[in-house]
Amino acid sequence: MNKNSSNTMALAPNTSNKRETVCIFGTGDFGRALGHKMIQSGYPVVYGSRSTQISNLIPKDAEVLSHAEAAQKAAIIIIAIQRQHYNFLTPLAEVLRGKVLVDISNNLKLNQYPESNAEYLAQLLPGSKVVKAFNTVSAWALQSGTLDASRQVFVCGDDVEAKQMVMNIVRALGLTPLDKGSLLAAQEIENYPLQLFPMWKFPIFLSLGLTAFFFFYCVVLDIIYTYIYEKNNFSFFIAITIPNRVCPVMALILLALVYLPGIFAAIIQLYRGTKYRRFPDWLDKWMLCRKQLGLIALAFASLHVVFTLVTPLRAFASWRTGKGIISQALNNKTEPLDHTNAWLSDSYLALGILGFFLFVLLGITSLPSVSNNVNWREFRFVQSKLGYLALILCTAHTLVYGGKWFLSPSAYKWYLPNIYILSLIVPCAVLVVKFVLIFPCVDKPLTQIRQGWERNPKYSE
Amino acid sequence: MNKNSSNTMALAPNTSNKRETVCIFGTGDFGRALGHKMIQSGYPVVYGSRSTQISNLIPKDAEVLSHAEAAQKAAIIIIAIQRQHYNFLTPLAEVLRGKVLVDISNNLKLNQYPESNAEYLAQLLPGSKVVKAFNTVSAWALQSGTLDASRQVFVCGDDVEAKQMVMNIVRALGLTPLDKGSLLAAQEIENYPLQLFPMWKFPIFLSLGLTAFFFFYCVVLDIIYTYIYEKNNFSFFIAITIPNRVCPVMALILLALVYLPGIFAAIIQLYRGTKYRRFPDWLDKWMLCRKQLGLIALAFASLHVVFTLVTPLRAFASWRTGKGIISQALNNKTEPLDHTNAWLSDSYLALGILGFFLFVLLGITSLPSVSNNVNWREFRFVQSKLGYLALILCTAHTLVYGGKWFLSPSAYKWYLPNIYILSLIVPCAVLVVKFVLIFPCVDKPLTQIRQGWERNPKYSE
Amino acid sequence: MNKNSSNTMALAPNTSNKRETVCIFGTGDFGRALGHKMIQSGYPVVYGSRSTQISNLIPKDAEVLSHAEAAQKAAIIIIAIQRQHYNFLTPLAEVLRGKVLVDISNNLKLNQYPESNAEYLAQLLPGSKVVKAFNTVSAWALQSGTLDASRQVFVCGDDVEAKQMVMNIVRALGLTPLDKGSLLAAQEIENYPLQLFPMWKFPIFLSLGLTAFFFFYCVVLDIIYTYIYEKNNFSFFIAITIPNRVCPVMALILLALVYLPGIFAAIIQLYRGTKYRRFPDWLDKWMLCRKQLGLIALAFASLHVVFTLVTPLRAFASWRTGKGIISQALNNKTEPLDHTNAWLSDSYLALGILGFFLFVLLGITSLPSVSNNVNWREFRFVQSKLGYLALILCTAHTLVYGGKWFLSPSAYKWYLPNIYILSLIVPCAVLVVKFVLIFPCVDKPLTQIRQGWERNPKYSE
Repeated sequence: MNKNSSNTMALAPNTSNKRETVCIFGTGDFGRALGHKMIQSGYPVVYGSRSTQISNLIPKDAEVLSHAEAAQKAAIIIIAIQRQHYNFLTPLAEVLRGKVLVDISNNLKLNQYPESNAEYLAQLLPGSKVVKAFNTVSAWALQSGTLDASRQVFVCGDDVEAKQMVMNIVRALGLTPLDKGSLLAAQEIENYPLQLFPMWKFPIFLSLGLTAFFFFYCVVLDIIYTYIYEKNNFSFFIAITIPNRVCPVMALILLALVYLPGIFAAIIQLYRGTKYRRFPDWLDKWMLCRKQLGLIALAFASLHVVFTLVTPLRAFASWRTGKGIISQALNNKTEPLDHTNAWLSDSYLALGILGFFLFVLLGITSLPSVSNNVNWREFRFVQSKLGYLALILCTAHTLVYGGKWFLSPSAYKWYLPNIYILSLIVPCAVLVVKFVLIFPCVDKPLTQIRQGWERNPKYSE
Repeated sequence: MNKNSSNTMALAPNTSNKRETVCIFGTGDFGRALGHKMIQSGYPVVYGSRSTQISNLIPKDAEVLSHAEAAQKAAIIIIAIQRQHYNFLTPLAEVLRGKVLVDISNNLKLNQYPESNAEYLAQLLPGSKVVKAFNTVSAWALQSGTLDASRQVFVCGDDVEAKQMVMNIVRALGLTPLDKGSLLAAQEIENYPLQLFPMWKFPIFLSLGLTAFFFFYCVVLDIIYTYIYEKNNFSFFIAITIPNRVCPVMALILLALVYLPGIFAAIIQLYRGTKYRRFPDWLDKWMLCRKQLGLIALAFASLHVVFTLVTPLRAFASWRTGKGIISQALNNKTEPLDHTNAWLSDSYLALGILGFFLFVLLGITSLPSVSNNVNWREFRFVQSKLGYLALILCTAHTLVYGGKWFLSPSAYKWYLPNIYILSLIVPCAVLVVKFVLIFPCVDKPLTQIRQGWERNPKYSE
Repeated sequence: MNKNSSNTMALAPNTSNKRETVCIFGTGDFGRALGHKMIQSGYPVVYGSRSTQISNLIPKDAEVLSHAEAAQKAAIIIIAIQRQHYNFLTPLAEVLRGKVLVDISNNLKLNQYPESNAEYLAQLLPGSKVVKAFNTVSAWALQSGTLDASRQVFVCGDDVEAKQMVMNIVRALGLTPLDKGSLLAAQEIENYPLQLFPMWKFPIFLSLGLTAFFFFYCVVLDIIYTYIYEKNNFSFFIAITIPNRVCPVMALILLALVYLPGIFAAIIQLYRGTKYRRFPDWLDKWMLCRKQLGLIALAFASLHVVFTLVTPLRAFASWRTGKGIISQALNNKTEPLDHTNAWLSDSYLALGILGFFLFVLLGITSLPSVSNNVNWREFRFVQSKLGYLALILCTAHTLVYGGKWFLSPSAYKWYLPNIYILSLIVPCAVLVVKFVLIFPCVDKPLTQIRQGWERNPKYSE
């Protein structure tokens, strides 16, 4: 950076201590909202418009001129026009030469056009410096200025200086600019505000489907069966008892599903003898949503914990406790402590608590701010070592609790297995295969493959 | 950036592999702390001082010279002097020409001077490159180097290269620089360390006031009334029973207060027929502290959950349970299960658990690192859709629990309504009005207004 | 920045709308993984290799040439070679002049060489622009592209423009670049991926040791003593009862250990009469791991809360409750409510809940994203004021609970004090000394010292 240029740049705002004029092309909703906000922040704003008459919608302190006149007054021009009207800018190419054009446009759906709007603008006006910005902010949020999510403004552009100027405006409006690099990033930035939790869709639909299935399974076995064969109406089980049966089952299965793709990947790599071939698509997608699966599992586990802890507060529970005690009292005897039972109940609870504790730890580590402060080795240690430990503890918790039902015929109402038995299939399979994979005779070739070794080099061609 | 300049810049630290000398003007506490830290990090430090004698307070390895001599030795000069003494720098203007001056000063109160100290310094010495930095770090934290909050150093300045040099020093000291743009941001940076949770003040005072009111309301109705009319001393209710009555009430009211300003805003916009006029000041302020209100509501809700869950551990609860069971046993009968009661108790608990679950989800989404990873559409979905769902569930939870008391005359001790009835006023009002606003005949014009349409365009002038 | 250079820079990607060619020296695992990923992201990749024959390991779309030929095709050359082979690059110095060299190497242990690999490379090839990057990313993560922790790529280098080019590539690969300043930061960046929770080691070992000690202490007193003298087998206490005795003790002691070094520091400063001398090493290290100690204390406290809340679900607890009630029923009497007991039980629970609530608040504030949004004054307020309040509440909670045992001889089995008594020593000592330090006659000189005043200026020399 040579002396002269840096001086002119530095002194311009210094000497006047005033914001430079900003020009806005287009008087639509977003153009007006941005103009309002900029005037509030001390920027002189001049609008470029075809008609200079519709002034009463426009902020009072702004000037309205023709496009050419307005553009000449400012070094930065915000293009608040829809993409289909961009070609009307080509006659203005000479006026816009060397100016910073800020593309703020959004599309209606993902990847609507072959190239991003900002790149299209840059192609139309090769003499101008195009910067993509502000598209992730909503007009409503700008005006009310309250929503937190809209604070971040992604900025990209090929000219570093132009990007700096736009980022200074972003900061002056109280927003946080985030440099996303060259104009090639515009496509991604334009797609960003159209997304609605794209990574969460599959995990959420999967867990909704499984939850619905297990819920009706439990309703059939616990309420309908009991009503038909035992004439007991336990319909109120729908509120707490059955959710508290479905939640732990979902948590355990989803947690196992987090570690299952890693098992598949290891088997595929061992079979192929190389890591240099892509996994099948379904496995790739599955591996990409492991974090989401794990967090949903954690949500189910947390619900299970709270549902369990409120048990003593339930009218049903206190009625059952009372009944048991009264029947003892009426029989004039006190039952001695059943030590086996005490051991089982305590160890089942303790295993659950420790498993849940590790599970919460995993959840905290996947908070973006925490995982950013952790290096790859540490992240792997927590997510892999502690994760498997959590899976082992939670599976053991379920085994101790539900174990007694495996062999009892009363657990097979209508020849259907109890929900606990179903919930143990996936986690046990994962743990058994993982145990095999840890054996040195399997682990050694796998480690070699992952370090780049190939069993059969020609295979990869 | 031309070749030569970038090379000189790049090679300077490369060839010597040593830190460049830094000059510090002023030997006060912060100047010395910074000097200590810089010497530790490998920077040669030279102090500029009026007297070169007071050397024993200054770090051993630092040189002490006159201001002019010291300034000549370094490209970066840290001005550790108070603003009122800045004018003594004007005779040195020639020596300081082209140098980077780092303004580290703080004021004693918000907006103490018309312009920021850094801008004032830049006006006094127009030939120097002023950078604002280090003012958010405390001398004590620099010396002990332990407190996390002080890691971030806000940097601003008009000269990009000068800013880079300062940011490199910041990084070398183990701190994290944060570019805040041009020197115009200096005012904000100087105000920053003086704040003490400015956004939290109103929500905290409001909730303290309401808590105190409801607490005494409960003490009067539950303890004093019972003592006078039933001769029962339940003073120990102060520890758990009454807090567990006040907490849910506070949580519900505060959660409703989060959504009330949005309702007001919609009504005002519908009435005015435009969104281009500012809301009244109180509404603007209220909308800006919604996040804080919501988090305080979440804190009360969490306390309510824990207070509820410890119930079975209380001596009072086990005494009451025992009394109930013994009276049944002495009457030689077992009461059958009351199905209505079981339904009510279970559904009340389940509604509460689900409401709290959504509430916690809202809380997690408002963690800065999570909300930064979420776009505006996703944030709105969570905070608006899930937020209203949480409000509905929590209101239903309260209605099912407290519903039986509405018509019971025993709930109106001293003609005062029960606290549950009071807590339902605001949330029910919010939900009813929101329900009306959702009707298409109301929703359609509102959506149009929010997209920029105006019913009466002249109105806005 | 002059016009010409910025234009050539800006237009290059604009006109072609294609990624520039990247050259990779070395065909090892990481070189291939990076090449694969770059080709996927649209970069033409050319490998520089001694032998151009081993092509079947290399991504199909990549060219393989000799080092000199490959280097000429690209402006950016990634050096995927181990440090000990760097000297073979010196003959290529002329070809590499002005090129951007990206050092991606890692070492096997911390501080293996006197200077960082990147600085060594820059010394070997003074005409090239060396940038350190990508070393924190693992080859495995690049290929599978799923692990969150590896998203951040630390970048440092002396040439700003070269750094920008590398950061653009990083962004294009879907990773997040983080500018760490000049090449001096390379040492730190190279050490980063080798760490495994370095700040956590001491706190974790300390708490494991203490936990083991207290666990066996409890086993001896609660199980073995009871078995020998009372012939009762309470071995199932190992699962819940004893952990729930050890956890609160650990939480309280560790929380007190967070505040103890601050007390020591104040005493040392008062004694020395200056803050300008370094603390002893052990105190410095201790102060640096206070956050970790606090978080481990919070983990123990959370476990204590859950262990306590599951109490009513235990078979042992319901057996004990039943026994108590039945004995009353058989004696045909109902015991009246013991008001003292109700007060003690409720206030002990309430103190615990409030203390835990503040504790969780402290934990949330130490999340990186929250503490970054808080200034020094606010952080100090939360961590110091609220932290001491939490310590006071937790100590009071323990005192109210365990107080009755102090004077009871049955608490001294085998002349050993009960674990509660042991747990109170450190927190009470901290609170008492802190109380003394708050007295104006002590606080005033301490504040002066911390503001830079010295009692005995010569002392510091």
